[in-house]
Amino acid sequence: MKRIALLMVAVVALAGDVVSIAPASGQADGEAAPIFGVKIPPGYRNWSLISVTQEGGDFNELRAQLGNDIAIKAYREGKLPYPDGTVIVALHWKRVPSEEDNKVFGRAQAFIAGSPVNMQIMVKDSKKYAPTGGWGFGDFTDGKPADEAKHKTCFPCHEPAKAQDFVFTRYAP
Amino acid sequence: MKRIALLMVAVVALAGDVVSIAPASGQADGEAAPIFGVKIPPGYRNWSLISVTQEGGDFNELRAQLGNDIAIKAYREGKLPYPDGTVIVALHWKRVPSEEDNKVFGRAQAFIAGSPVNMQIMVKDSKKYAPTGGWGFGDFTDGKPADEAKHKTCFPCHEPAKAQDFVFTRYAP
Repeated sequence: MKRIALLMVAVVALAGDVVSIAPASGQADGEAAPIFGVKIPPGYRNWSLISVTQEGGDFNELRAQLGNDIAIKAYREGKLPYPDGTVIVALHWKRVPSEEDNKVFGRAQAFIAGSPVNMQIMVKDSKKYAPTGGWGFGDFTDGKPADEAKHKTCFPCHEPAKAQDFVFTRYAP
Repeated sequence: MKRIALLMVAVVALAGDVVSIAPASGQADGEAAPIFGVKIPPGYRNWSLISVTQEGGDFNELRAQLGNDIAIKAYREGKLPYPDGTVIVALHWKRVPSEEDNKVFGRAQAFIAGSPVNMQIMVKDSKKYAPTGGWGFGDFTDGKPADEAKHKTCFPCHEPAKAQDFVFTRYAP
């Protein structure tokens, strides 16, 4: 009986860990993106970081790319193509000056993530999305998917990254 | 017996999940930072994202701040001060142009995380680090801690953020 009790403690403890790791921001019941049917994956905001980028020009954004466990494992192992089940989420925020940081450094040099602009999702399913390199795409603003016209631009934009399985973002160590 | 078997399956399954979530980049046996004794926390590279920043001037860096479960929970609940056990890791990379992105957009506007510069760690322990607002600091380059002189600058630099418990970074939704 002692063993069973210990096992039960272990189950509860581990279940607790798993639950605490995956709360919040689940919008699994949200609307699906046109063409690809991609939805915002539940718990994505807890995922590990792939890298960060800055997009200037008309965008003026700071961005972060997060990956699910399959994506992160593939990135770290440097394996291409990404396996089915890979999901990458790119979060885009307005790039805004940080008055607080600038005060500390004594000059205007710091920028932080401001209000969210949109999020873009890539889902790997080599059969389902065979015509678009095995990738399904989703573009969401405030939890709502962009229209079909916008989603038609996703794959053509990613085609130049064909040598990296259509993914631009590299892993930042 | 069936119940026990099911429990064992659950234990193995959950243990598998937990293990798969926390691999890589553990440098727990590494050198401790002077003054504070802070070490690089094992598995930090799997932690959830707090926000991203860009630091110009002499830095020319893109940065990401990651938090352990205690940090992320406190951020999402907006609770101050941060509870003991909070750990925040800031990763700093050189900000480099992305020729690949620029080609797609047809002009020079994209920057990505280049080579790692350093990482900075904040550990909350209100008793141990009482003289420095309850925070211990660590600054590491290539896994090696900076010297004592550098670590003496950590708390004075963070003092202006006293109203946010000495933490500059805000959570990016």
